[in-house]
Amino acid sequence: MYPQFSFEITHRSSKSKARCGKLVTPHGAISTPNFVFCGTKGAMKAITAEQLEATGAEIMLANTYHLYLQPGPNVVAENGGLHKMVGWNKPMLTDSGGFQIFSLGHGCVADEIKGRRNFMGTRGKTLLKISEEGAHFRSYIDGRTHCLSPEISIQAQRKIGADIILAFDECTPFHVDPTYTARSMDRSHRWEMRSLREFKRSNDNTQAIYGIIQGGIYGDLRRESAEFVSTNEFFGQAIGGSLGGTKEQMNHVVACTCEHIENNRPTHLLGIGHMGDILNGVKNGIDTFDCVHPTRLARHGGALVDPSTNDGHESININNARFIHDTGPISHTCTCYCCRKFSRSYIHHLFKARENLGGQLLTIHNVHFMEDFMKHIRELISASKI
Amino acid sequence: MYPQFSFEITHRSSKSKARCGKLVTPHGAISTPNFVFCGTKGAMKAITAEQLEATGAEIMLANTYHLYLQPGPNVVAENGGLHKMVGWNKPMLTDSGGFQIFSLGHGCVADEIKGRRNFMGTRGKTLLKISEEGAHFRSYIDGRTHCLSPEISIQAQRKIGADIILAFDECTPFHVDPTYTARSMDRSHRWEMRSLREFKRSNDNTQAIYGIIQGGIYGDLRRESAEFVSTNEFFGQAIGGSLGGTKEQMNHVVACTCEHIENNRPTHLLGIGHMGDILNGVKNGIDTFDCVHPTRLARHGGALVDPSTNDGHESININNARFIHDTGPISHTCTCYCCRKFSRSYIHHLFKARENLGGQLLTIHNVHFMEDFMKHIRELISASKI
Repeated sequence: MYPQFSFEITHRSSKSKARCGKLVTPHGAISTPNFVFCGTKGAMKAITAEQLEATGAEIMLANTYHLYLQPGPNVVAENGGLHKMVGWNKPMLTDSGGFQIFSLGHGCVADEIKGRRNFMGTRGKTLLKISEEGAHFRSYIDGRTHCLSPEISIQAQRKIGADIILAFDECTPFHVDPTYTARSMDRSHRWEMRSLREFKRSNDNTQAIYGIIQGGIYGDLRRESAEFVSTNEFFGQAIGGSLGGTKEQMNHVVACTCEHIENNRPTHLLGIGHMGDILNGVKNGIDTFDCVHPTRLARHGGALVDPSTNDGHESININNARFIHDTGPISHTCTCYCCRKFSRSYIHHLFKARENLGGQLLTIHNVHFMEDFMKHIRELISASKI
Repeated sequence: MYPQFSFEITHRSSKSKARCGKLVTPHGAISTPNFVFCGTKGAMKAITAEQLEATGAEIMLANTYHLYLQPGPNVVAENGGLHKMVGWNKPMLTDSGGFQIFSLGHGCVADEIKGRRNFMGTRGKTLLKISEEGAHFRSYIDGRTHCLSPEISIQAQRKIGADIILAFDECTPFHVDPTYTARSMDRSHRWEMRSLREFKRSNDNTQAIYGIIQGGIYGDLRRESAEFVSTNEFFGQAIGGSLGGTKEQMNHVVACTCEHIENNRPTHLLGIGHMGDILNGVKNGIDTFDCVHPTRLARHGGALVDPSTNDGHESININNARFIHDTGPISHTCTCYCCRKFSRSYIHHLFKARENLGGQLLTIHNVHFMEDFMKHIRELISASKI
């Protein structure tokens, strides 16, 4: 069913479930474990596709929800698909749109899957109704109402044309009981089957579809959902929905989910981007991750650094006055354009002077840093050190 | 006095006063006529120095006024000077700071030199007092009071370290009578002599100083000021102050000033960036121009195009709904990254989605476009076609 795609596991660590692999798509291959950078609306915000490529990044994603509303899938298709439109000729992934509908309904994606917000109090801001047909919501742009169904999501993702696309699901939030979570998971499974049918109906071998494992924080539901996805013809699987409210809970959910996945398929962990969490995911057998964290952090003045050189913290805030006279680079060991050319003092000045170039330079650094980090992880796995 | 600098006129048009030349600085040479791109606070705002260089740009400027207030000349010096700080290893120019003090005192620079604003009604917003010593003003950042004098300006420009620096003058506004303009010009001349003395006192041969020709819209004053600058040891000259309220008046002021300049020195026209005005300046013998116009226009969605293909207009506004489905490039003949890779439809989407990348791509185009335009002008001069 996926003649132009393959996933080969090239090394398994003897110390954990971590593995190195090669994921091949019609737009080239990526080494795994790897990180997928977020170009939400078809733009990496602060940097060009050329700059993204220069950092060594191998894959980016865009969000179907945002592109569905603006400029619309037809305009993307008129432009020859998203790869051509955004000038990125490497692998690309789109989500199904469901994630954002539900997240924007009650807060932000990161708050939700990490359990930082009380679901019941705020849900319903833009989400109007969930029916068996799909999710009815209000556009955050012009207030008009839309319905995104499994069929519409797959048709939109066909027009957008990413290599890897996701089945349409309900992103189960954090503060819901097992009964709602189970009911929501069942509906997600029905929606995923409809997604798969629509995918097969229009299959032209240029795309591969991942199923999504739901089940919230409940081990038995995660097991059921993992088995559902494994027994259907998805090319890979993504772990979605709430991962709990603490790091420990997240690790538990990821670990018990990974015990039941189809082991030879690529596995993606949605919305996770902190180094410690990525390392934990890798040890459980996760192959790819995505999160706005590295690029969003950069635009606010956060530069990723080796935690072992920074009191255990994963970033420094360049806005801090202690950098006014610091003429050293963000990192002495980093080889990115930002670290080769510019001082902390200059980047501090750019942020203080409200020059967008500051966010651009830190985005280049953070993306390069994440690429280096993932490469380091692959080396550790190859040597069975993690 | 300027062993590391030279200006050689390589061709004079037989049709006008237009000439081609080569301006050599310690950071390399530029071909003239050329355009100086504005990196006001030590940043090209939307693009990196690397992207600026990739467009073919040969020279940039920064504003002493802004850098004086933030991060301060000492911080620039600690970073090894502005070239090193901003990652630009080609020729660079700084103004003296006077231009901004007077402009921000009553409006914006462009309004003022182009006579678009009534001077008497609004002056004094941040400009507190002009004394023989210098200009007393309030910081637009924190409200603290400062005095910029010829000596302080030159010392600041030394620390910043651009190749070409400007003498400190009063930027005479538009709506003032000949008496005030003459008095202001005389003070500018005294300030310029003090600038030159301070320059000589600290001369280490790494910088060259331009005198500034004032005199407002009055031909006799412009003549007197041109002769003053010509008879002193400036490496070049810049035409500053008000150029009048209409294109005709601007052309008249430029023409009558150029009749009296020292012909073998490089001549810069301050703050002019529209194609038609540049062409007129070139015909009068102007060698370099600067203006925020091409880059500011880009950040607001304006893309420069050949006026002969656009009903005589120098730009299109990509925000216009007619570009939603326009899958062609900004310009079919332009070879910049933006035109090679992206459609008008995509850039329209970026602006509609408020993605900064839109301004970044149009900045790349507009800078490349201006470089092409200046190259075309040099070819026309070489063939004595203008």
